[in-house]
Amino acid sequence: MLTPVEEIIEEIEKDRKSGASTLTDKALECFAVFAEQSSDKTLQTLQDQLLLICNELIHSQPDMAPMFTVTQRVLSCVENLKNQNPSPEKIRKTIKELIHTIRTELVQAKEKIAAIGLSLIKNSDTILTHSYSSSVKEMLISVHKMGTTFQVIATESRPGFEGRKLAQDLGREGIHTTLIVDSAACKLLQNASMVILGADRVTEKFFVNKIGSYSLALCTHHASKDVYVVCDTTKFVPTSFSTVESKLYPDEEVLEEELPNVTVENPYFEEVPLSFIKGVICEKGLLSPKEIGVII
Amino acid sequence: MLTPVEEIIEEIEKDRKSGASTLTDKALECFAVFAEQSSDKTLQTLQDQLLLICNELIHSQPDMAPMFTVTQRVLSCVENLKNQNPSPEKIRKTIKELIHTIRTELVQAKEKIAAIGLSLIKNSDTILTHSYSSSVKEMLISVHKMGTTFQVIATESRPGFEGRKLAQDLGREGIHTTLIVDSAACKLLQNASMVILGADRVTEKFFVNKIGSYSLALCTHHASKDVYVVCDTTKFVPTSFSTVESKLYPDEEVLEEELPNVTVENPYFEEVPLSFIKGVICEKGLLSPKEIGVII
Repeated sequence: MLTPVEEIIEEIEKDRKSGASTLTDKALECFAVFAEQSSDKTLQTLQDQLLLICNELIHSQPDMAPMFTVTQRVLSCVENLKNQNPSPEKIRKTIKELIHTIRTELVQAKEKIAAIGLSLIKNSDTILTHSYSSSVKEMLISVHKMGTTFQVIATESRPGFEGRKLAQDLGREGIHTTLIVDSAACKLLQNASMVILGADRVTEKFFVNKIGSYSLALCTHHASKDVYVVCDTTKFVPTSFSTVESKLYPDEEVLEEELPNVTVENPYFEEVPLSFIKGVICEKGLLSPKEIGVII
Repeated sequence: MLTPVEEIIEEIEKDRKSGASTLTDKALECFAVFAEQSSDKTLQTLQDQLLLICNELIHSQPDMAPMFTVTQRVLSCVENLKNQNPSPEKIRKTIKELIHTIRTELVQAKEKIAAIGLSLIKNSDTILTHSYSSSVKEMLISVHKMGTTFQVIATESRPGFEGRKLAQDLGREGIHTTLIVDSAACKLLQNASMVILGADRVTEKFFVNKIGSYSLALCTHHASKDVYVVCDTTKFVPTSFSTVESKLYPDEEVLEEELPNVTVENPYFEEVPLSFIKGVICEKGLLSPKEIGVII
């Protein structure tokens, strides 16, 4: 039988629909449950257990930077305690406090991101977005609640169709949303004021987002319109982070039947050069590609 | 009850899956059946009937150039007879002969296109294509039968998934084909030797093809790889031809349920500048964008 911690990791691993922010929430929950329920009697077994969890989390969603940044923060925090020869209880308490701190920071980040969104999006704007990003969704809903009237064009996002969920969530909040097939994004761009995308990872050279983001960003750049990326800085990692291989995703999502001499390739993510974008909206402000390069 | 001619026109109008070449076959069949079965007693009623058919054919698939070029050829042919004060029988016979001539020309065009394909595609090449084009399919199958070993990457082509049909048809012929979601085309481009697309219309400035072609052509051009368009010259028309509005396609193809504040936009076609492509493969040769401009 799986432990509660193992159950959360399995849930994260099987999750094909959520963006990096939602998965970060789950990873934090995983550490919180670990700190609450771990019954390890010695410092060493607790640390071994923690290292195992961090490793599993990183490999559960290798394209999601927060799996790396959050686990690194937990590990560093425990490492820093070592000189104090802490009790397992002390370590568990410290992890709980760190998770609380990170959650508070993430709430504050959302507020700062919403404020930048409010200054960027004007009445009557049309925002084109691709796939489902909870960072993008929450920013748009906040800006709408603060009184700006805009509309959204959302792609359906094959193979998982998670754009339908975004359209449903935005529509329910009263934001008028047009749902399109992914291939129509470059044509519908002509009706858009700007493109706003989420990110699972941002490096000094590129960001990683759902497959289809590269062509959309290139077309937008080519049409002299602006692409913005929305994410908190837990998604910021150096390019050299890309040591874990991207996962392969199930063929059945693209083609259910077997056809002779036909195979399926089903990548979920791709890298988009920062040179295609105007900037990244995060809790540190609206950062230009150059500024991102300095920070990371 | 519908006449056989009306039945064919209705079939063309409802067809959401076939490319321009298949629909051209059906339009030719429509004229052949008309010439065979028409019982109009006077020249005037026959001409009126013919004009009505041509008008309905053009509006049945307004993005398909051959509907225009083929009907124009039939009308011109009848117009040229007028000075001879022909009997309705003579007109019907002339139409039958013209349809036979056009069909022969189209068969010869396919052979010439296949020969160009053979000189272009090398052993071990990987051809990336989008959606379903019978011109592309027939050229690839011919080149394969003539002994060149290559593989194909095919997009599924939402909303109709007609790329699955292409993958199935090519696979059945022994051509190894990888099926991908539309959004993955720009990433998988890195594995491709070249991109080959069909066209429903070619003008002196752009070609019209399935939605998604613009971003793919731009990404390919940006990656310094070549895009070729395959079609016979029945698809060549001046830009000024674009007087008939594109049709709207059903929302239900993108989203079956109703969601509050969510609407669907479902365009099928888009214009791609000829500047993104290396050339058009047609029965007159491999024509550069500049040469296309001179011909049309």
